Amino acid sequence: MQIKMDAEALGAFLVEVFPQVHTDFEVIEVTETGVRVRLVTADRHLRPGGTVSGPAMFGLADVAMYLAVLSRIGPAALAVTTNCSIDFMRKPVAGVDLICDAVIHKLGRVLAVGDCLIYSDGMDALVARATLTYSIPPKNGVF
Amino acid sequence: MQIKMDAEALGAFLVEVFPQVHTDFEVIEVTETGVRVRLVTADRHLRPGGTVSGPAMFGLADVAMYLAVLSRIGPAALAVTTNCSIDFMRKPVAGVDLICDAVIHKLGRVLAVGDCLIYSDGMDALVARATLTYSIPPKNGVF
Amino acid sequence: MQIKMDAEALGAFLVEVFPQVHTDFEVIEVTETGVRVRLVTADRHLRPGGTVSGPAMFGLADVAMYLAVLSRIGPAALAVTTNCSIDFMRKPVAGVDLICDAVIHKLGRVLAVGDCLIYSDGMDALVARATLTYSIPPKNGVF
Amino acid sequence: MQIKMDAEALGAFLVEVFPQVHTDFEVIEVTETGVRVRLVTADRHLRPGGTVSGPAMFGLADVAMYLAVLSRIGPAALAVTTNCSIDFMRKPVAGVDLICDAVIHKLGRVLAVGDCLIYSDGMDALVARATLTYSIPPKNGVF
Repeated sequence: MQIKMDAEALGAFLVEVFPQVHTDFEVIEVTETGVRVRLVTADRHLRPGGTVSGPAMFGLADVAMYLAVLSRIGPAALAVTTNCSIDFMRKPVAGVDLICDAVIHKLGRVLAVGDCLIYSDGMDALVARATLTYSIPPKNGVF
Repeated sequence: MQIKMDAEALGAFLVEVFPQVHTDFEVIEVTETGVRVRLVTADRHLRPGGTVSGPAMFGLADVAMYLAVLSRIGPAALAVTTNCSIDFMRKPVAGVDLICDAVIHKLGRVLAVGDCLIYSDGMDALVARATLTYSIPPKNGVF
Repeated sequence: MQIKMDAEALGAFLVEVFPQVHTDFEVIEVTETGVRVRLVTADRHLRPGGTVSGPAMFGLADVAMYLAVLSRIGPAALAVTTNCSIDFMRKPVAGVDLICDAVIHKLGRVLAVGDCLIYSDGMDALVARATLTYSIPPKNGVF
Repeated sequence: MQIKMDAEALGAFLVEVFPQVHTDFEVIEVTETGVRVRLVTADRHLRPGGTVSGPAMFGLADVAMYLAVLSRIGPAALAVTTNCSIDFMRKPVAGVDLICDAVIHKLGRVLAVGDCLIYSDGMDALVARATLTYSIPPKNGVF
């Protein structure tokens, strides 16, 4: 899959399209099969005890797969999530950023499917995994 | 399934356990098979265009199923989500609260499973559906 | 949603398109929101102990949602499953048929989404639940 | 994770516990993180056109994750699938075996979670992916 947007272009796109949340995320790199994204953990992502909340982890997986798809098809703001199946496996380490590796398995004409693996920064054990399906707009609705 | 916490008790529990988010949610009622919960839509839940974000819908389903389980087992703060499969089917109506009907299908010794149906308040068409599995702590860790 | 195929038409379609498996299934009725289908349990569906196997329950949910979609769009043999999330909740009763209620939540231009609830015939407790997404061919590829 | 059963032991276990289906599957190897299993494709797995059916792919993923778990905990016949989310991404190549790589992400006290990637033998493109959760019996019910 050809790369159409690099980490810098994806970051600039986030700022433009998601003004509410772009400071939560940092695109670390565009990889051979997807992207790696950091959730810069802040108070609003936490549950009592300092652990990152489920919705914040869902949001990280959702943004990471969105960016993985855009990195291959270009800036199509209208791609939308149709399904996400997420498994929460271990408690994230308190006070640590989360790292998400998104891998694209299929980039079809109308659907893209991929997996996300989420870790606490610097740890080996998986915190969560997710599979997401994105529906791609017919003309790739270039922004 | 016997009801151990009513809407008022669930609301008070939310205030105590989730001080960060309790104003987002309103327990409308405890139903025969689960609970009905409202997401009081605010700016922080919205994407550009005024539609409710995916993470906010995930958060609504997650809280609603949590409350449905607690309504039957009592205030076990330690129940944790292990899996959620969520389908986004239609764009929520802008500027309108979301209503979530959570139904418990199984309340086992260690796992609870149920479905959530999410609507824009006052509309018939489903915005999203989700299935969630909660892991229940051994002694129901009464809070 | 208008009904384009009734139980008899769906049954005849199964015979024609799935000669290997059509004797496994019986379309009980086309309902207001989907279909009700019976798995006529036979030795090849069983695991040791006489309980219906996971793949047989998956197959029942898959066929039931397929028939639910066809009942609304007509005989489009090319509709394909893109995702299924299935939860196994209780052991089926040995030596009893399974009944599956498939309900369509969304019938879009390219995707259909619905839920299946599976029971042992004559019992109230759910054995399994599943959500399926079908991809619908562009021209409904009438058979 | 220590390996408690190798490919030969897993194969012998299949023969004993699943007399109906053991000839369908061949344990290729126990890997560092799970197992690799072959579906020996036969007529009963096929749909018209010669492609492997959805239920047969589900069955392959289910057996592979079961064997991956057993390879680490020993012969616990009573481990049961509680959830499977499966994505069908490409049509399998007609007349070719399927290969399934099962990877364990979490092996907890009561739940095991892992991913399966399914290929047509000799091909690079993924045919399907699945995530499965197994419930592990309390005493590992040694067979």
